[in-house]
Amino acid sequence: MTVSSLTAALFSSPGMERVFSARNTVQCMLDVEAALATAQAREGVIPHQAAVVIAASCDVAHIDLDALSRDAGAAGNLAIPLVKQLTARVAMTDPEAAGYVHWGATSQDVIDTGMVLQLRQALSQITVDLVAFADQLAALALHHQSTPVIGRTWMQHALPVTFGLKVAGWLDAVMRHQQRLGQLRTRLLVLQFGGAAGTLASLGAPGLRVASALADALDLALPAMPWHTQRDRVAEVAAVLGLLTGSLGKIARDIALHSQTEVAELAEPAAEGRGASSTMPHKRNPVGCAAALTAALRVPALVSTMLSAMVQEQERALGGWQAEWDTLPEIARLCSAALSQMHQVVSGLQVDTRRMRENIDATRGLVMAEAVSLALGQHIGRAAAHEWVEHACNTSLSSGLHLLQVLQADPKISTMLSGAALEKLCDPTVYSGESTTFVSRVLAVHAHRKDEPHQE
Amino acid sequence: MTVSSLTAALFSSPGMERVFSARNTVQCMLDVEAALATAQAREGVIPHQAAVVIAASCDVAHIDLDALSRDAGAAGNLAIPLVKQLTARVAMTDPEAAGYVHWGATSQDVIDTGMVLQLRQALSQITVDLVAFADQLAALALHHQSTPVIGRTWMQHALPVTFGLKVAGWLDAVMRHQQRLGQLRTRLLVLQFGGAAGTLASLGAPGLRVASALADALDLALPAMPWHTQRDRVAEVAAVLGLLTGSLGKIARDIALHSQTEVAELAEPAAEGRGASSTMPHKRNPVGCAAALTAALRVPALVSTMLSAMVQEQERALGGWQAEWDTLPEIARLCSAALSQMHQVVSGLQVDTRRMRENIDATRGLVMAEAVSLALGQHIGRAAAHEWVEHACNTSLSSGLHLLQVLQADPKISTMLSGAALEKLCDPTVYSGESTTFVSRVLAVHAHRKDEPHQE
Amino acid sequence: MTVSSLTAALFSSPGMERVFSARNTVQCMLDVEAALATAQAREGVIPHQAAVVIAASCDVAHIDLDALSRDAGAAGNLAIPLVKQLTARVAMTDPEAAGYVHWGATSQDVIDTGMVLQLRQALSQITVDLVAFADQLAALALHHQSTPVIGRTWMQHALPVTFGLKVAGWLDAVMRHQQRLGQLRTRLLVLQFGGAAGTLASLGAPGLRVASALADALDLALPAMPWHTQRDRVAEVAAVLGLLTGSLGKIARDIALHSQTEVAELAEPAAEGRGASSTMPHKRNPVGCAAALTAALRVPALVSTMLSAMVQEQERALGGWQAEWDTLPEIARLCSAALSQMHQVVSGLQVDTRRMRENIDATRGLVMAEAVSLALGQHIGRAAAHEWVEHACNTSLSSGLHLLQVLQADPKISTMLSGAALEKLCDPTVYSGESTTFVSRVLAVHAHRKDEPHQE
Amino acid sequence: MTVSSLTAALFSSPGMERVFSARNTVQCMLDVEAALATAQAREGVIPHQAAVVIAASCDVAHIDLDALSRDAGAAGNLAIPLVKQLTARVAMTDPEAAGYVHWGATSQDVIDTGMVLQLRQALSQITVDLVAFADQLAALALHHQSTPVIGRTWMQHALPVTFGLKVAGWLDAVMRHQQRLGQLRTRLLVLQFGGAAGTLASLGAPGLRVASALADALDLALPAMPWHTQRDRVAEVAAVLGLLTGSLGKIARDIALHSQTEVAELAEPAAEGRGASSTMPHKRNPVGCAAALTAALRVPALVSTMLSAMVQEQERALGGWQAEWDTLPEIARLCSAALSQMHQVVSGLQVDTRRMRENIDATRGLVMAEAVSLALGQHIGRAAAHEWVEHACNTSLSSGLHLLQVLQADPKISTMLSGAALEKLCDPTVYSGESTTFVSRVLAVHAHRKDEPHQE
Repeated sequence: MTVSSLTAALFSSPGMERVFSARNTVQCMLDVEAALATAQAREGVIPHQAAVVIAASCDVAHIDLDALSRDAGAAGNLAIPLVKQLTARVAMTDPEAAGYVHWGATSQDVIDTGMVLQLRQALSQITVDLVAFADQLAALALHHQSTPVIGRTWMQHALPVTFGLKVAGWLDAVMRHQQRLGQLRTRLLVLQFGGAAGTLASLGAPGLRVASALADALDLALPAMPWHTQRDRVAEVAAVLGLLTGSLGKIARDIALHSQTEVAELAEPAAEGRGASSTMPHKRNPVGCAAALTAALRVPALVSTMLSAMVQEQERALGGWQAEWDTLPEIARLCSAALSQMHQVVSGLQVDTRRMRENIDATRGLVMAEAVSLALGQHIGRAAAHEWVEHACNTSLSSGLHLLQVLQADPKISTMLSGAALEKLCDPTVYSGESTTFVSRVLAVHAHRKDEPHQE
Repeated sequence: MTVSSLTAALFSSPGMERVFSARNTVQCMLDVEAALATAQAREGVIPHQAAVVIAASCDVAHIDLDALSRDAGAAGNLAIPLVKQLTARVAMTDPEAAGYVHWGATSQDVIDTGMVLQLRQALSQITVDLVAFADQLAALALHHQSTPVIGRTWMQHALPVTFGLKVAGWLDAVMRHQQRLGQLRTRLLVLQFGGAAGTLASLGAPGLRVASALADALDLALPAMPWHTQRDRVAEVAAVLGLLTGSLGKIARDIALHSQTEVAELAEPAAEGRGASSTMPHKRNPVGCAAALTAALRVPALVSTMLSAMVQEQERALGGWQAEWDTLPEIARLCSAALSQMHQVVSGLQVDTRRMRENIDATRGLVMAEAVSLALGQHIGRAAAHEWVEHACNTSLSSGLHLLQVLQADPKISTMLSGAALEKLCDPTVYSGESTTFVSRVLAVHAHRKDEPHQE
Repeated sequence: MTVSSLTAALFSSPGMERVFSARNTVQCMLDVEAALATAQAREGVIPHQAAVVIAASCDVAHIDLDALSRDAGAAGNLAIPLVKQLTARVAMTDPEAAGYVHWGATSQDVIDTGMVLQLRQALSQITVDLVAFADQLAALALHHQSTPVIGRTWMQHALPVTFGLKVAGWLDAVMRHQQRLGQLRTRLLVLQFGGAAGTLASLGAPGLRVASALADALDLALPAMPWHTQRDRVAEVAAVLGLLTGSLGKIARDIALHSQTEVAELAEPAAEGRGASSTMPHKRNPVGCAAALTAALRVPALVSTMLSAMVQEQERALGGWQAEWDTLPEIARLCSAALSQMHQVVSGLQVDTRRMRENIDATRGLVMAEAVSLALGQHIGRAAAHEWVEHACNTSLSSGLHLLQVLQADPKISTMLSGAALEKLCDPTVYSGESTTFVSRVLAVHAHRKDEPHQE
Repeated sequence: MTVSSLTAALFSSPGMERVFSARNTVQCMLDVEAALATAQAREGVIPHQAAVVIAASCDVAHIDLDALSRDAGAAGNLAIPLVKQLTARVAMTDPEAAGYVHWGATSQDVIDTGMVLQLRQALSQITVDLVAFADQLAALALHHQSTPVIGRTWMQHALPVTFGLKVAGWLDAVMRHQQRLGQLRTRLLVLQFGGAAGTLASLGAPGLRVASALADALDLALPAMPWHTQRDRVAEVAAVLGLLTGSLGKIARDIALHSQTEVAELAEPAAEGRGASSTMPHKRNPVGCAAALTAALRVPALVSTMLSAMVQEQERALGGWQAEWDTLPEIARLCSAALSQMHQVVSGLQVDTRRMRENIDATRGLVMAEAVSLALGQHIGRAAAHEWVEHACNTSLSSGLHLLQVLQADPKISTMLSGAALEKLCDPTVYSGESTTFVSRVLAVHAHRKDEPHQE
């Protein structure tokens, strides 16, 4: 157990831990070896009986993971010692069959295809989680479609929006990520199989037929050719998960800002032992947001590693391929953990609508200046209106009076706009523009996605 | 002129220089202002006459770019001083119309939509260049479909492949990038229009109708809602260009390795003053590859900036949005320059097929050991064959004899395989496996893409 | 003018613009050429008269920068076309002297040494700016050494600190950066001079004497050997400026958080046209902080480029060296701009000490719970004290009463602690621990640095 | 066991595994708790007996690491559940003492100081390894001080250098890294101790005395003030290890290029099972270089994460601090693994000096063109000489004759330079310029460092 597994708890994603566990990594590679033997037997390349024995031996339970790890160092990759262990295992049952283990394949065939199998599992998990997260956001956006909250730009009060609009913006981005994940699947879910230099030469004539049968057996597509040093397929997974993590970080930043003591509009759900301070009884720390923000800080650099690693030499890389091995699982793990944390945070999010309203009012009507100015502009022109209202704002600021009071007390203005008209203009709930329409539009997209049979 | 514009020549992309020039940046923003006024007149929000004057004034020729740059510093963005200059310009013709400039819009509406217009131009250019590059690669792959070259893994000789197979691998990746660029267009080419806090509140009832008319006028789609702080649309452009740049870097790395003095299989096209050394008359430096490799070193980090910048605060960001401004154009510029350089390199690439064959033979048949071992395995089993051949390889290495000679001189082996059979087994041109088939498969995908009406 | 120079205004650093301008870049390279000729004449390698003519010609005013930029593309670097122009210029005066231009040097000698000269200028500027910034922070820390402000952890109220302590933390980091910048100078400020392959072979016997004379002439140290592909010297500049930018970003983040509408403890200095909103008269946007945060978002990725670029091939790199050319100046520019912006922000920072106190009190004494709990613990043990106080906090939260009132009304507690004692315990100005001592300690370090003759 | 620990073998560093193991991480934190209790008893803050019991309990053997990991998730950090377990352990012996565990400290005090203790161990290990590596490089540089090898620029033959010069360049960089590591120690090896908000308020008057005693006990310096959100100290470690890793990657890139089949000047040491191919008996893969290149690809991005993470909020960060936890150990692990791999590679490096000479000669004297040209220039002027020699080079290229033969056969040239003179000019061993001097200069620096008592 390394320090990573200790601190990892904060960024944990049980699904990803399982997918990228040593056991599953090795099992996925063994699944490739088993399917390879079976496909080769079907195409008459190796004896049927050998394939049966090999396939039966391809179980991680038979593998000594510690020895594997130790030997991988000198070998330079996991496949070489794994094939050695597997061969020894097969030889115990059928020495002749042992000669057909890993027949015609190269290490990278098994490592890459195994990784594609793992990524399929990982993306399935993330896809399912995203559907649940989107549903949750949709429910929250609907519930607060008209709840006024102050819009903040440059971290300063701007104009009123609705809390539902803010949530709809999060949802809108999440749905685009769902679309991207759907589109990359056809590029990613393909076989890697080319033998030592990517030509399948050692298999002779049946090479392509074996490849096709192997792809079928693994439920992967057969690509036009092997892609040992063309890494855009896996780098794209990194990039799209990077985009998703960025959006999750944005949601976390928003919630953290709204949860500040002075703002207090939102709070992470309370739970025993969650976010408590060791010394200060009054605190509740936004630990879920912290985890998502941590992921959003770490993943971009890991994506850049995947992109840098694309410059791979000739038919097999020196460094670039190896740089992917820890990096891509780490991206998946952090992204999934951030998703899981934000799911928890949003599912129990405490929304204080009264405080939202108080914060709008805290600047005594100043945030409604634009609305008043626009209305007044109809009567006296935009420039004059802007000037009059700015003057009223300054009076409000210096006197501490509410802008409405200042406006109503101004004889020039009150001849243009009645007290009631001014009151309505200064009502933030009225000045939310197309907020609810935008929420409806986003929710319609969400509903439409749900209706489609295959939602990616 | 900064140092950047001096050294930029090496990484130049005339297309991108034009798209991201100060003039075009400002003109695209003015195009948004003009379309906004027109759309608002159509929807009865501002007087028809005002829209006519505003639209007529939206020409970068009227703008003082130096003043714009100077004022942007204090304002914090380009839109504020641009609107000021435009308003002044309109006021010269029609003071009343000046009141309707930028009506209901926020700075980010104009900056983001202007940038979308620029990105549309940039992606069109890159798309066109990619089609030409793919065609060139297809022609090269076809021409060398069967040309033997040694496959190299871990920067060591492995087995023979064909040069066409290597080029087909490059092409295969390029075509996936074409597909990705096509898919992101529908997400990217949308309007940004939400007013100060993203609600269109200041436009009142016609808000959404104006947005729709504005999108139409700019030939952009109307998104479900504004996306001021949801930056996945633009970060995705960065990511996909990052993937493309990675593949270009891989091609450049390959060509540079094949061009080394000792390898000498490829050479960049010769041109007056290109790649010459200031002191050594015998040198020709691979300057095109250097430029693409430079881009492949720089772009991944810039992509990570775009991803990091996605964590944007609330309704308008403090730092994240601003970090995009120089970064995204730089990515487009470097990617396009790398593409242009590799286009030049590949279009005049000098391929020395004789040297390719000499290099295969330089290790005196050792690279054919696998082929011999497999054939021998049919007779004596895989393990014994591997052992016999390994022994023969060692004899070849220590004696300096060609592997074929060693094999033919071995009485045990010659009883199994005739001299002619061994000769054929040691012929690298025979042992290229599915190389030509793979090339054909990739070329078929290419041909199919060409036949499609919208190949994006 | 590119878009960069338009948006650059926000991130402008007049000093860096000058240092890294095309003119100065070329002049620094010409300074190297002039010094080289002079040194070679001194050592008898070239005729004295040739050196006089060459040195007199080394003025950027004679150089056609547009042509230089155009030719750099094909040549692959700036030095080749510059030497060509310089040679032509010298030839106009003295054709024989023209033969001695750039004698024995390679392009990288001139480009790298020129860059070292530029970096010396850049670091001098930043060093001077840092001294002024540190002085300002020291004055601010001293002025607010005892000003109470609530300490915030996890973006939640924690315990009172002093505003001076926060500023002292900023200053403490800035002084460490000053120390780092001082230490790297001896590694950085060295000559690059090795000729075509780094051996000075073309100079024959006087090679090292010329190198030494050249270093003297440029006031640089002579390194043990040339360092063409050992890039730690320049990568270190990037790293240290990256560290400095990170600290500036931290200061900006703090000020932005303190400037939020609901917090309102700090505000950037007001200035005509600075940070105003185009639509909302009541807003003042923290544009200085935004610029520093933008730099802090962008620089880390640029530093990673400099580190990635260190893997340079053999005696001259293919991509790695070229990747430095735009990256290092961009880092210097962004770092210096962030420094300049934060200097402006801090120099006119509006500090609302009354609001700081109100925010402490906004949670009605809850932030003093720890203090009360500790005092009570002396009487009844830590665990019981924690429980009693937690109960009182909950009563305060539910009743809306100040914690002091709750405590004073509690008969159990009032037998332990008098009303006056409780009042004192709930006074945040008393519970600032070692805040003022820490400020004094940091200020002492600052004063000590000022007293040293050579402060780096 | 995760996939990471499987693939980690390739990048393993037993030293770093130990330093950053879960056990040692927790033990270092416990060391801080023990020292804290002892220091507080010394200053009269807690009872002497409590300190004795606490210190005796601070042994990782008593800690349930699985439970710790599980609870860290909800708590948000490791310290909270660790203090809970420690308190329970102490309570078993002395319930009253349990109340004094972690007295006055905050989680970050213990986590950061624990990490400083780990970093001290890590840097000691790397420092020791660097000394050994530098010694090895020095021996290699000395041994090959005069061994001719072709210098390669832009991956093309340039001019002869010596292999010792190349190695001296590596050594020169390594020694600068030793210097940097020495300089950062005084900034890094300091206590973190400030309590909940960095003021030590809960300790009352003895606060600073306790801090001082605690620093003494841990053999750390007492900083001017706590540095909870000033992260330059730890980010600097990342940056300097990043610089070192870059230089190691450069060495690996060089060795890999020299080891290519066609170049064959160097080879990694052979070892059973190391770098063998699963299918090709003739191959020896440079696995050590691959590991170092992998590190050099991954570390720069991780450094950028550390720099990005510096922007930490107020008195305790939300994401930035947490992003360091896995990132910094990963940097140390990759850097140390790369160092260990390159140590192994260099220690058994196979240097084929005959092949080095053959490669120089492979271009039949062309690489000596500069030398001839310079000598001829003494007679006929530089321009004419360049032209004559260029012509001779072209004749050599087209005829296949050695440049020396061409020159000797040229009547014009042979009147200027005798056959013997030409022979000497075309001797690459003569034209190594200051190569051996530069090697001596670097070795002198190395010897000087060795002589210093404290070599950092």
